[in-house]
Amino acid sequence: MTTVGILGGGQLARMLALSGAPLGLRFLVMDNTEDACAGQFVPQLVADYRDQAALAEFATRVDVATFDFENVPAESAQWLAERVPVFPSPRALAVAQDRLAEKTLFRELGIPVPAFAAVDSRAGLDAAIAAVGTPCILKTRRLGYDGKGQFRLKTAGDAETAWAALGAQARAHGLILEAFVPFQRELSVVAVRGRDGEFRAWPLTENWHDHGILSASLAPASADPALQAAALEQARKVAEALDYVGVFALELFLCDGTLLANEMAPRVHNSGHWTIEGAETSQFQNHLRAVLGLPLGATRPLGSSCMLNWIGELPDASAVLAEPCGHWHDYGKSPRQGRKVGHATFRADGAGELAGALDRAAAALGRQAQVAPVLARLRGA
Amino acid sequence: MTTVGILGGGQLARMLALSGAPLGLRFLVMDNTEDACAGQFVPQLVADYRDQAALAEFATRVDVATFDFENVPAESAQWLAERVPVFPSPRALAVAQDRLAEKTLFRELGIPVPAFAAVDSRAGLDAAIAAVGTPCILKTRRLGYDGKGQFRLKTAGDAETAWAALGAQARAHGLILEAFVPFQRELSVVAVRGRDGEFRAWPLTENWHDHGILSASLAPASADPALQAAALEQARKVAEALDYVGVFALELFLCDGTLLANEMAPRVHNSGHWTIEGAETSQFQNHLRAVLGLPLGATRPLGSSCMLNWIGELPDASAVLAEPCGHWHDYGKSPRQGRKVGHATFRADGAGELAGALDRAAAALGRQAQVAPVLARLRGA
Ligand SMILES: Nc1ncnc2c1ncn2[C@@H]1O[C@H](COP(=O)(O)OP(=O)(O)OP(=O)(O)O)[C@@H](O)[C@H]1O
Ligand SMILES: Nc1ncnc2c1ncn2[C@@H]1O[C@H](COP(=O)(O)OP(=O)(O)OP(=O)(O)O)[C@@H](O)[C@H]1O
Repeated sequence: MTTVGILGGGQLARMLALSGAPLGLRFLVMDNTEDACAGQFVPQLVADYRDQAALAEFATRVDVATFDFENVPAESAQWLAERVPVFPSPRALAVAQDRLAEKTLFRELGIPVPAFAAVDSRAGLDAAIAAVGTPCILKTRRLGYDGKGQFRLKTAGDAETAWAALGAQARAHGLILEAFVPFQRELSVVAVRGRDGEFRAWPLTENWHDHGILSASLAPASADPALQAAALEQARKVAEALDYVGVFALELFLCDGTLLANEMAPRVHNSGHWTIEGAETSQFQNHLRAVLGLPLGATRPLGSSCMLNWIGELPDASAVLAEPCGHWHDYGKSPRQGRKVGHATFRADGAGELAGALDRAAAALGRQAQVAPVLARLRGA
Repeated sequence: MTTVGILGGGQLARMLALSGAPLGLRFLVMDNTEDACAGQFVPQLVADYRDQAALAEFATRVDVATFDFENVPAESAQWLAERVPVFPSPRALAVAQDRLAEKTLFRELGIPVPAFAAVDSRAGLDAAIAAVGTPCILKTRRLGYDGKGQFRLKTAGDAETAWAALGAQARAHGLILEAFVPFQRELSVVAVRGRDGEFRAWPLTENWHDHGILSASLAPASADPALQAAALEQARKVAEALDYVGVFALELFLCDGTLLANEMAPRVHNSGHWTIEGAETSQFQNHLRAVLGLPLGATRPLGSSCMLNWIGELPDASAVLAEPCGHWHDYGKSPRQGRKVGHATFRADGAGELAGALDRAAAALGRQAQVAPVLARLRGA
């Protein structure tokens, strides 16, 4: 009997546990919130990731450890890795936690990135703006998620306001200034690498954000084969450079035909949730297979899938359940503004069938705006 | 937040819970064994089904109740149904628990059955043999499963030995004598009926048994449309007659072109496990949708599936995981002779692909005998 420890007990840990149960696995999650939603199905240690005693208990109770949350303190991951196998490695985690380190790595690997510069003082911000140009985005190097910890600058004149918003974080987390990319599309590669170095990727996914939070994903994305291949190749390079083990996502902007890497997420990713129904093997099960050194599952898609995120609160499930191709995912969380509380996946054999289902469900839910860009893509607009 | 109570905490309850989590459901199982495998993921009350205090606690903690085990005492189901909604109803359960009652119902509904007669004494056995003919099978009316509680008679001369084996159970459970059916194939219909009477069935499944225990299932079964339709119609009639709510299976013998009903299982069924990967909606999720009054999911198959049961102990998972179309299900049970400890499902777009995967996996596992009848069917032998 193998117990997998997961640092973080949110919906990613929950879906990992649900998909790992058929492998005969047991789980233990560690999370500092009392009612972490994975805790509804697996045992939970309620503790801070820096709590040494809790980490020690965690280490004795698990056979291998992984993450549902990438911002676990690097020292905690390191401490744990000296006691039990930890995948991805603390080093890979450390790079992916830090926007500056990951963009630097991407550039070293020959992967195109938006212009960027580190910022650690008010004067440094002015220098960075001069180097990167405007418009641009000031971001915290660490701990940002769902578009939090970001400030957009239209002109150099916005520097003062940007500094007022994020300057205080320069010391604690560091800052990075990035050129604003006037992209046409956002894409992601969700991929998995095994302990033995085997690499597999699901088809390219197209993503749409709303207020910085993922709103919808469509997979396989319509993209010419050369672009698909280039994106997968970038993901493979990153994974190999980090000797990465497990599932990760590489987020890309498509701008005038060029792919620019935005960031990587060192874990299963929201833009891969469609793989539960839409692929032969889900990102969740393949992450566990990788971490445990089991053979990786096939990543081929089963038809076309669209995932819609439910942010803040769940709409009425019936409109989704009534669609023959609709699948419902309630994370068991209480509603709260900006919180990811669930998603739905529509999986169909063809684009027309998928569009029809999305259209009907969106009308029933009053969610036309959320599906509009997906429908436009499916209908070739 | 809705809590579903399940009487019985085995692999069926476990798979119900895993498939119900995405619906935002919580679960509570009640089982008299300490280490019931569903208890690894959901809370469990360890108690006998006749334990009044435990039933009372169960009733206060759940919103609706259902079964993973059909032999819950009728009085316990009834007692519970007076306190919380119970699906399927205690009446439907009572009929399905009793081979005599279900065969009588089938006959009343015009569904062909093997010749049968009730047996409640030694003299009654002789009379039954005279009426039914030989060869025949003496079975306990209640509590039989996996071929247990059965005795086969070749001639009337076997009556004495049969009575020695099962006569003691005549008083407690009752006995039934059935004509032995020299069937060519065993088929099952797994179907679901909603609270509102909506009826849906998965495609007909072909099954093979080994020592009375299900060994392999293939779905969709190759069968002409008229036969498919007839089988589904029989399932519908039974469901409507019982005002059945939830998933059930109707087991059929195909003998010289005629379908004969063997028995019904008033719960999700081993011959429906392939629906987890092989159908748009699994039997597990549809059972919960039915029980909760939610819209039923589509039952259409995704390609062809073969399920192999693992009895006694698990073979090596890698041979299955290494097949692109192989899916593994370990129930988290300890090995024991005759015990269902897991299964594998192979799901492919075509019969050739499915046969190839089964062939390779069986060779790697030394399970050629188990897959031989499936391969023969797939290859049209
Ligand atoms: N350089 C950029 N140019 C244009 N848009 C950007 C840029 N950086 C971020 N964005 C927009 O903001 C969104 C969120 O940004 P980013 O992925 O960096 O933040 P995050 O907080 O890590 O988000 P997530 O948790 O979704 O990964 C992006 O998906 C994109 O829509
Ligand atoms: N009348 C019959 N004629 C021929 N074979 C029979 C007959 N009854 C049962 N069998 C064989 O024995 C197997 C098990 O019988 P049955 O389904 O009645 O028992 P069970 O203990 O309820 O099994 P399960 O738990 O698999 O439903 C059948 O699938 C069939 O192979």
